[in-house]
Amino acid sequence: MTYDFYWISGSPNAWRVMLTLEYKGVPYVSHRLDPSKRAHKTPEFLAVNPRGQVPVLNAAGAIITESLAIMAFLERAHPAPALFGKTAAETGLIWQRIFEVVNHLRDPIETGVVRAISYGEAMKDPDGARKAAGLAATRLDWLEAILQREPYLAGASISAADIATMPIIELLARFGAKPDAITLGLGFDDLGRTHPAVAAWLKRIQSVRGYDAAYPPHWRE
Amino acid sequence: MTYDFYWISGSPNAWRVMLTLEYKGVPYVSHRLDPSKRAHKTPEFLAVNPRGQVPVLNAAGAIITESLAIMAFLERAHPAPALFGKTAAETGLIWQRIFEVVNHLRDPIETGVVRAISYGEAMKDPDGARKAAGLAATRLDWLEAILQREPYLAGASISAADIATMPIIELLARFGAKPDAITLGLGFDDLGRTHPAVAAWLKRIQSVRGYDAAYPPHWRE
Repeated sequence: MTYDFYWISGSPNAWRVMLTLEYKGVPYVSHRLDPSKRAHKTPEFLAVNPRGQVPVLNAAGAIITESLAIMAFLERAHPAPALFGKTAAETGLIWQRIFEVVNHLRDPIETGVVRAISYGEAMKDPDGARKAAGLAATRLDWLEAILQREPYLAGASISAADIATMPIIELLARFGAKPDAITLGLGFDDLGRTHPAVAAWLKRIQSVRGYDAAYPPHWRE
Repeated sequence: MTYDFYWISGSPNAWRVMLTLEYKGVPYVSHRLDPSKRAHKTPEFLAVNPRGQVPVLNAAGAIITESLAIMAFLERAHPAPALFGKTAAETGLIWQRIFEVVNHLRDPIETGVVRAISYGEAMKDPDGARKAAGLAATRLDWLEAILQREPYLAGASISAADIATMPIIELLARFGAKPDAITLGLGFDDLGRTHPAVAAWLKRIQSVRGYDAAYPPHWRE
């Protein structure tokens, strides 16, 4: 089966799927869309995904959107190496961690910090930016506590929960070290000091199979 | 294995799990918490789930929170009848529908309409309530379009996507028919007229195994 994978460099949702493909060693045809050219809003792409969002996986005509749905599809189609557990208890915990991240960690980081810095909004509202950063830090403390106890989000082995969460933390580390974030004192420029278990976990993820291939190419430029 | 299931009557997230248990015919010990007594915030319950939220499933010591994670756990532990598909393509579409509902349909209905009516906020801000209802109606149109084509959210058979979505629509039908909602003209008091395929789908779900057992008991009082 041929997979066509549509993605944007730096999109955290596309990144988690791309790393899943690479980690599982699943071949795919890469379709990188250039957001500066609005390539995700062309009639051609809107015919693939009417929401105009990445990631999208076209699996021989079965088009799947929503990053975590694509990951669940890939797990079923390519069970090894397993990313959603081998027992019901493992599966339950992995999905629990994913939904905890989606419901409690993602927005405070992606909207409250990353977007505020990358769109230049943080400098216009320093108090708001610091308040949002405080919430993100509290939520990151939750992740730190888990990773102080276990090497991965759902225990001893890497799982879909780690792969789904990694891009969010990568974005935080990248944008938390931007000059604006440092000027504002948001406190995310040295995760190794503030959240050492999170930083050590990120290093572990950075050495897994496929990490380099899935790394956002425009971050290297 | 003994399951202890913690729930609150009328919680949509607890409801979807309870129907999953009943639909699959999985025995469980029921622990109904009374929110008027803050039973979900007692030290005993916070020891089970520090977030103080339902649903929770305690599977012989493995405590699982997050409703969709519990459903994924139950699918793996009790595969028949299948609710997450029998092929990778089915699994992918079911999870896609779940995330589309979670990301696009849930909040406009649960926060924008149900909460606004049930907390009495809608009457204090009629324009805001009507605007929120307009967004919810647009998102419901998306569901209507799917169900005009197929009997269930992910095709010909009932799946976890239907069970996960049903309580949201039940809440909308219930609170959309409250006097305040009718006074404000929110437009959800006759889904059979405005969204006939959604109304017909809801009737189908209401006849599945376990529906009556999982129905919020305080809604019958």
